[in-house]
Amino acid sequence: MPSSKTSGNGTSGNGNRSNGKRRRVRQLKERPVRPDPRQPIKGRLLIIGGREDKIGGKVILRSLARLVGNGKLVVATLASEKPGEQWAEYEGALRGLGVRHVYHLRIESRADAESPKAIGVLEGATAIFFTGGDQLRLTSLIGDTPVFSRCYEIFANGGAIAGTSAGASVMSETMIVGGNGEASPRFGDGLQLAPGFGFAKDMVIDQHFAERGRVGRLVGVVAQNPRILGVGIDENTAIEVEPFRRFRVLGDSSVYVLDGSDISDTSIGADSSGRAVSIFGVRMHLLTQGDEFDLVTRTPTRGSADEVDEELGVEPERESQDAVAADE
Amino acid sequence: MPSSKTSGNGTSGNGNRSNGKRRRVRQLKERPVRPDPRQPIKGRLLIIGGREDKIGGKVILRSLARLVGNGKLVVATLASEKPGEQWAEYEGALRGLGVRHVYHLRIESRADAESPKAIGVLEGATAIFFTGGDQLRLTSLIGDTPVFSRCYEIFANGGAIAGTSAGASVMSETMIVGGNGEASPRFGDGLQLAPGFGFAKDMVIDQHFAERGRVGRLVGVVAQNPRILGVGIDENTAIEVEPFRRFRVLGDSSVYVLDGSDISDTSIGADSSGRAVSIFGVRMHLLTQGDEFDLVTRTPTRGSADEVDEELGVEPERESQDAVAADE
Repeated sequence: MPSSKTSGNGTSGNGNRSNGKRRRVRQLKERPVRPDPRQPIKGRLLIIGGREDKIGGKVILRSLARLVGNGKLVVATLASEKPGEQWAEYEGALRGLGVRHVYHLRIESRADAESPKAIGVLEGATAIFFTGGDQLRLTSLIGDTPVFSRCYEIFANGGAIAGTSAGASVMSETMIVGGNGEASPRFGDGLQLAPGFGFAKDMVIDQHFAERGRVGRLVGVVAQNPRILGVGIDENTAIEVEPFRRFRVLGDSSVYVLDGSDISDTSIGADSSGRAVSIFGVRMHLLTQGDEFDLVTRTPTRGSADEVDEELGVEPERESQDAVAADE
Repeated sequence: MPSSKTSGNGTSGNGNRSNGKRRRVRQLKERPVRPDPRQPIKGRLLIIGGREDKIGGKVILRSLARLVGNGKLVVATLASEKPGEQWAEYEGALRGLGVRHVYHLRIESRADAESPKAIGVLEGATAIFFTGGDQLRLTSLIGDTPVFSRCYEIFANGGAIAGTSAGASVMSETMIVGGNGEASPRFGDGLQLAPGFGFAKDMVIDQHFAERGRVGRLVGVVAQNPRILGVGIDENTAIEVEPFRRFRVLGDSSVYVLDGSDISDTSIGADSSGRAVSIFGVRMHLLTQGDEFDLVTRTPTRGSADEVDEELGVEPERESQDAVAADE
C-alpha cells in the first residue's frame, strides 16, 4: 500500500498522476457507480449508533482498526460543520490503535466531490469512515458524484464502510433525516425520510436509539413497509454487517431489531391527521455484544460478549451504572 | 347517593356516625381486605399515563366523569407533596364536567390511613382517583391499612379506581418505582420494583412512556417473567380496564403492549454485571384510542377513535404536530 500513501496528498502529484485522476473523474462522471442489487458485494459495513468510546476500551474503534489492518483508511467528515475538530479527534484515536495509513477527506461542495484532489485521497483506500453531523449533507454533497462512485467501488470490491450517527443513518436505502424522538408515531408527525447511500439493503437504521427515545419513530417507519427491517443502534454500540447476510453486535449497549413481518393490523394507511397510529404485532429483539442476526431468516442468535472483548483485546472491566432517576 | 354526601364531611358527624366509623376501622384493622384472585371483581380501572388534558377536549377526565356518574368520587392526593394544589386543579376540572359529589382524601401518615375521618371520606364512595407523585408514598402510606381495605372493597363491589402517573404504576401487583429512562436494560442498572396495590393482575404498568423513553426498562421487566404483560401508557392517554378480561384505549397518544410469551432467548438470568441484556422475540403492539386488548388471549383489536370522541362528547378537532427536531 505504499503508493497510496503519497497519492493521498492529492494536489502535489506529478503530471501523470494528476492526469490519471482527471481521467478517473471524467470516467466516473460519465458512468456513475450506483448501488446494484445484482452486483456481488465483498465489503463489510460497520454501523455505529454515535458517541463511540474514543478513550476507554474503544471496542468499536478497535473493530474499525482491525477492518482496516494495514490498508488505507479515509475519514470523511463531510456531515459535520466542524470537520477539522472531528478529524483531529479520530486521527489521534485511530493512530493510537495502530492504524498507520489514515487520511482526511474534506468536502464542502459538490465541486469538491468531483475534484481530482478528492479522488486522489480515495485512491487505494480500503476503508472509509463517515463521521457524524447531518445525513442530508452527506447525500446532497456526494450523491451520484465521482466520490460516491469510488466509495461504492471500494465497498463492492471488499473494502469497509464505517459510519457513526449521521454516517450510520445514511447507510440505508431509505434513511431517517428527521422526526420526533420521545414520541409515538402519529399521522403528520413530521417524520422525514430521504434516499440514503444504499450500502445496507432492506433495513432502515436509527441511531442514538434508546438515548433519544426513538422506538416510536422507527416502528412508524417499519409499519409503512415491513419489507424494511428497523435497526435501532444505541450510543457506543455498533453492528458489523456482512452484506446482505448477517450482522454481529459490538459495544456497550443494545441494538433493537424491529421486524414487521407479522404485523397483523395497522391504521397507518388511513388518513387521520394528527391521530396516533395503531400498529399490532411487531416482533422486537434486543441484541447485545456478541449476538448475531441473520438478515435472510430474520433470526437472532446469542453470542458471548466476553469473547468479543477478548478477540479485540479489550480489558474486561465493566463500569457500574450508578445514576438512576427516581420516578414519579 | 345523597346520604354519602354528608358522610363525606368526616369529622362533624353525630355520635352514632362517629362510633360507626370507629367500629368500621376496628373491623378493617382486624380483617384487612387484600387482593384475592378468587374473588369476583365487579369494578373498573382507569389507568392514565400522566399529564391528562384538563383544559381541552379532556377525553380522559370525561371518561372518569362518566364512570362516576351520580356517584361519589374521592380524589386521593397522597402520592403528592402538593396535595392542596392537585386537589384544587382536579376539583375544578371534574366539577366542570358535571361531577357533583367529589371529595378530597388527604393522608400524610399511616395513622391518617386508619382514622375514622379517612374512613368517613370513603363512606359511600363509588370511585377513587389516585393522582400523581411518588408511588412508594402510596403503598407505604396506605398498604394494608383500613383505607386500602375500603378502596379494594369499593373496587370489588363495582366501583371505579382511577390513577394517573404514580397512581397508574401503583395499580400493578409488582410496580416499577425507579429505573433509567432513555436507556436499554442492563444488569445492575438500578431498575427498582416494589409490591403495588394489585388492582391489575398479570401486568406491569409504566407511564409517561414514549415521552421518557421507557421501552427499554419495561422490556427488561417483562423479560424477568413473561407471565407479566408490559403496558406502557403515554401521557394524556389511558386504558379503561374491565378486570381481568380486556381494556380499551382512550386519549391522545399510544399504549404499548409488550408481550413476552414468545421470548425465545434472553441473557437476563446470567450474572454479568454492567452488561446490556439480550432479549429475543418480544411481541409489541401500539394501540391508540378506540383499540381494545383482550387480556385473556393477549390479542389487540382495532377500534374507531372518532367514535370514542363522539361517545364522550369531545369535539373532533385535532391539533397539528408542528415541532419536529432535525436530526444529527
